[in-house]
Amino acid sequence: MTDRPKIRLYVDHPLGQGQSVAVSREHANYLFNVMRLRVGAEVALFNGVDGEWRAQVAAAGKRGGVLLCDAQTAPQVAPPDLWLLFAPIKKARTGFIVEKAAELGAARICPVQTERTNADRIRQDRLQAHAIEAAEQCGGTFVPPVDELRPLAKMLDTWDVGRALVFADEGEVGQASVALPQAPAAVLIGPEGGFSAAERERLRSLPFVHTMPLGPRILRADTAAVAALTLWQSASGDWA
Amino acid sequence: MTDRPKIRLYVDHPLGQGQSVAVSREHANYLFNVMRLRVGAEVALFNGVDGEWRAQVAAAGKRGGVLLCDAQTAPQVAPPDLWLLFAPIKKARTGFIVEKAAELGAARICPVQTERTNADRIRQDRLQAHAIEAAEQCGGTFVPPVDELRPLAKMLDTWDVGRALVFADEGEVGQASVALPQAPAAVLIGPEGGFSAAERERLRSLPFVHTMPLGPRILRADTAAVAALTLWQSASGDWA
Repeated sequence: MTDRPKIRLYVDHPLGQGQSVAVSREHANYLFNVMRLRVGAEVALFNGVDGEWRAQVAAAGKRGGVLLCDAQTAPQVAPPDLWLLFAPIKKARTGFIVEKAAELGAARICPVQTERTNADRIRQDRLQAHAIEAAEQCGGTFVPPVDELRPLAKMLDTWDVGRALVFADEGEVGQASVALPQAPAAVLIGPEGGFSAAERERLRSLPFVHTMPLGPRILRADTAAVAALTLWQSASGDWA
Repeated sequence: MTDRPKIRLYVDHPLGQGQSVAVSREHANYLFNVMRLRVGAEVALFNGVDGEWRAQVAAAGKRGGVLLCDAQTAPQVAPPDLWLLFAPIKKARTGFIVEKAAELGAARICPVQTERTNADRIRQDRLQAHAIEAAEQCGGTFVPPVDELRPLAKMLDTWDVGRALVFADEGEVGQASVALPQAPAAVLIGPEGGFSAAERERLRSLPFVHTMPLGPRILRADTAAVAALTLWQSASGDWA
């Protein structure tokens, strides 16, 4: 492991000793125009599979370029097997939840439709871009996939009972701390209006569902997502 | 304690049985224009001191009105004595940190200048408005004061040694969980560029300073603030 360059980019390309990587038009603009890198400058690359590699700029043009992998600077590390299920809310806050989930080490991000979710579609590509940007910033080598929007009820129909589902519900307000299940696990955050009575009843009846209290105040959905991921990582994840 | 109305407003006015409260122009617009409340409708009021009161609209006009306090619907509850010290970052993320700190039950919010803080002023009034809005949303009866921007170094010069200062530093990345001190306490979040070597050395030399690890990934300052407040509330605060 050697020094890690400050500029980190996610690329959808194999990485390895001596591997050359074509620079996309978008990255060429960022690297050579915005950041003004020249031939010989170093960047860090990761692709979610091969760890982080130091690469040198071998060619720099307005619309493209070539990076040459030099040495691995960090091993590939997967986060614990924790999913985040959340009901999309206003656009800015939905992007925020995805960013924070990637920073906090969620392994998979699953937008879900609940009875009180207004959204009937999401911009999956934009949300995935948020997750990539967060991974670039946080120094991780893993990018959590952002799934398509799916109905929570259908996900529950086919849920793998070996995966604990931790449900942060307003109904838990004020109760004492509880033990959190180990991985594989998922955290479920409801929409701004909360879960319906029928949803809550179904969730509580399922053998793999655990509840998680988040203090005496009502948290916004984005705050609840960050708080729940933090508590799980600290108790049962890779912060422990 | 009786039913709590859904609309909650913070007012800078004494509250109590039979107390009449003049409606500000801004609140009149919100209550009577946006929300279309009429005479007889109910709202919840709190002022940070007297708990939450149910009040009836006694007069409704375009530029003002009168609310009449009817019954206390929640007692005054102060959060644990936890301060958040943070270095202001980009405007949207600074507003976000204040909002989240109020939701998560910080008792006081202290923007601080560090060596790598770009900001030399903050919009204290706007940040205080964020804290009020968050308190209105989260159902709390307390609004944390947002202080003026002060140099961290000066705050440390006159720090009350009875208050533990928990310092979430990138230097702690990857270390195991630690015990968190009880209240009175403060959590300190650094700027995007981290603390300088001199700041870090001084902090670590102070008898009231504790360090807090926040996992193996580098967190943005706003994520670190939410995570640190969550962990403290869960371990030593009012979520325990």
